[in-house]
Amino acid sequence: MASRRAGLRLVSQCKTQSLLARQKTTNPFQSCRRSFATSGSSRQAVNTQSRFLGLALFGFLVASPLIYKMAVDEPLSLDALTLAERDAQTKLEEPVTEASPMRLRMEKFVKEQQKEIVRALEEVDGSKFRIDEWQRKEGGGGITCVLQDGNVFEKAGVAVSVVYGTLPKPAIEKMRANHKNITGPVVPDSLEFFAAGLSLVVHPSNPMAPTVHLNYRYFETTNPDGTPGAWWFGGGSDLTPCYLFEEDAIQFHKSLKEVCDAHNKEYFPRFKEWCDTYFYNKHRNESRGIGGIFFDDLDETLTDKESLFAFIQDGLKSFVPTYIPIIKRRKNMPFTEKEKEWQQIRRGRYVEFNLVHDRGTAFGLHTPGARVESILMSLPLTAGWQYMYEPEPGSREAKLVDVLRNPREWV
Amino acid sequence: MASRRAGLRLVSQCKTQSLLARQKTTNPFQSCRRSFATSGSSRQAVNTQSRFLGLALFGFLVASPLIYKMAVDEPLSLDALTLAERDAQTKLEEPVTEASPMRLRMEKFVKEQQKEIVRALEEVDGSKFRIDEWQRKEGGGGITCVLQDGNVFEKAGVAVSVVYGTLPKPAIEKMRANHKNITGPVVPDSLEFFAAGLSLVVHPSNPMAPTVHLNYRYFETTNPDGTPGAWWFGGGSDLTPCYLFEEDAIQFHKSLKEVCDAHNKEYFPRFKEWCDTYFYNKHRNESRGIGGIFFDDLDETLTDKESLFAFIQDGLKSFVPTYIPIIKRRKNMPFTEKEKEWQQIRRGRYVEFNLVHDRGTAFGLHTPGARVESILMSLPLTAGWQYMYEPEPGSREAKLVDVLRNPREWV
Repeated sequence: MASRRAGLRLVSQCKTQSLLARQKTTNPFQSCRRSFATSGSSRQAVNTQSRFLGLALFGFLVASPLIYKMAVDEPLSLDALTLAERDAQTKLEEPVTEASPMRLRMEKFVKEQQKEIVRALEEVDGSKFRIDEWQRKEGGGGITCVLQDGNVFEKAGVAVSVVYGTLPKPAIEKMRANHKNITGPVVPDSLEFFAAGLSLVVHPSNPMAPTVHLNYRYFETTNPDGTPGAWWFGGGSDLTPCYLFEEDAIQFHKSLKEVCDAHNKEYFPRFKEWCDTYFYNKHRNESRGIGGIFFDDLDETLTDKESLFAFIQDGLKSFVPTYIPIIKRRKNMPFTEKEKEWQQIRRGRYVEFNLVHDRGTAFGLHTPGARVESILMSLPLTAGWQYMYEPEPGSREAKLVDVLRNPREWV
Repeated sequence: MASRRAGLRLVSQCKTQSLLARQKTTNPFQSCRRSFATSGSSRQAVNTQSRFLGLALFGFLVASPLIYKMAVDEPLSLDALTLAERDAQTKLEEPVTEASPMRLRMEKFVKEQQKEIVRALEEVDGSKFRIDEWQRKEGGGGITCVLQDGNVFEKAGVAVSVVYGTLPKPAIEKMRANHKNITGPVVPDSLEFFAAGLSLVVHPSNPMAPTVHLNYRYFETTNPDGTPGAWWFGGGSDLTPCYLFEEDAIQFHKSLKEVCDAHNKEYFPRFKEWCDTYFYNKHRNESRGIGGIFFDDLDETLTDKESLFAFIQDGLKSFVPTYIPIIKRRKNMPFTEKEKEWQQIRRGRYVEFNLVHDRGTAFGLHTPGARVESILMSLPLTAGWQYMYEPEPGSREAKLVDVLRNPREWV
């Protein structure tokens, strides 16, 4: 039986390959060979990195190469097709519909949204994004779109990432803390997983226009017998102005509250607080920005998968109609050299948060072989650090700092 | 007996205080009161941070507030003066000579060198450093000197730090890995320690002029009975150019090799390699700069304390005569806008190393109450991140990257 399955698997791999070849797509399964060795260095990497895994999987968009690294050196189970192989086949054989697995629906949705967002930002800016498509040989890949040194945006990155891999035992054990149902009483040596999401950061040139960040993601594991395992959604969006326009802050939060309230009245207050807690530069005693929403690990203990997917979809779809009016209001406002200087200082703080505190970024950067340029597309084109810079009391700069130190309820 | 000692101690504290008051110096022992409580959050901080302690104590200049935090909530042992109190008294009663404890000699030496270096850099720049003196109520303090937006230097920081504190048990246990003699077979609940050092980072404006970093430090513990415990020196200096001038690289390394060779022919090759290994941006597969020397934990297993202090002194004293000729050669060289842009990218990498990989910086930034401005004086006034920037093959920029990817022996 096992050998028949192994045979089937090889046939299927070749079938997938030839189908892909016929479509003239770069295919993720170019070789039937895999490494069966477990190197010392990869074991070390797993040990170091699995410490972060429980908290940091929300950052899989950047962390995917780690999980990949954790996965590639695992011996191959020969008794079934991998999840990546099954999904690649399904996508070739039939269109993605509401009856398709959530993996394929989420991938399709974030790719559509990426196009939509890129189109909307290009329209505002008047220049084009650079589009880099990249693949992972073990399954999945990503599309990183970056617009740099534009007319309106100094740097804007919109990235989609789709990752298939295998979680080693220590990672599974960590995840059980938040997801009891990830395994039965016996923790297996490994579990296949899938992760997909969209991540964006937009840094406008004009210091009056706020930086915005957004990320929506879906994570799923497969049981050793091939049946669906645990799953959860994460995401959120937050605004980081250099100068506070209450009108913008209110509009941004109101839009997020409307999205949340349409699904569950408890979402907004909970996710707003989560955002204020997470995007916090502890060493500066100030928030990175003026908040928004942030959440992770939303699963069946909260509500059903369809409801959460609907919520995620509404959240992501609300980005363009929320941010575009804000940027349009601010992009041509006059500003002084001093105000541009303040923007550089605020961007320095943004860099500090992303490099020092953001768990997903740290996770990715400590991962051998990660696509660093996709991870660090979030960093601004320019930033600065002035020693002991203190805004003048009562100034607009001081007003911003006050809000960052005392997060406000905007709606 | 214990109460007599406690009484003596209080008398002595008040004596120290009144002496200090008479000198009209801000004194580090303004209050005889101390907190005897151990809060939950401080315990948590100890647990989290002691993980880093073994490796990161070389970064005590920035990390000192952590060790301080570890220390302040410890119950006070009333049967002896603290090390800080004894040293404060000694300094008031007699001048520091070669017969004084190494703590006082090192403090005196780095403070003298700080003045010397500040003077030399001011002479080159033509403008003045801002000087901030700060104190720690539990003993010690620092002097942070920063010159910003000068004629030659975009940002230069020269900082001295002197720290007295108490190591909690987990930190002692970590340190035993590198310093067997830190305790006897029974690990005490706490140990007093002393740390002093000088740290500097200079970022010139001209992209042809290299950034330089230097740090020399001394660490010592006191046994529970008040006798001297373990001690060690650490330090080094490294150069980070945006454009490679072999002449500069050779001169810089030659000077360090001469200093090393005068003490031990094995030092230079060993410390040069240590530098290449430590100042490495793993996620970029490139070194931060073109090397220099780096070392830590140099103690009696290598040679005696006097010999190591002599080595440290020579290393620090060699900075001015090594770097000043280099900066004088480069500070007025012509450069293009494109070359300035490359400098911003290289500075972005410098920020990445300091915020992502430097153990001392991470250690400090995760410490509640740290003097963040002294820690981050190392960051450049301006930096940038361009997505997928690749130097043209054969260009001067590509030549630098080649050296960063393949560290060279310069002497």
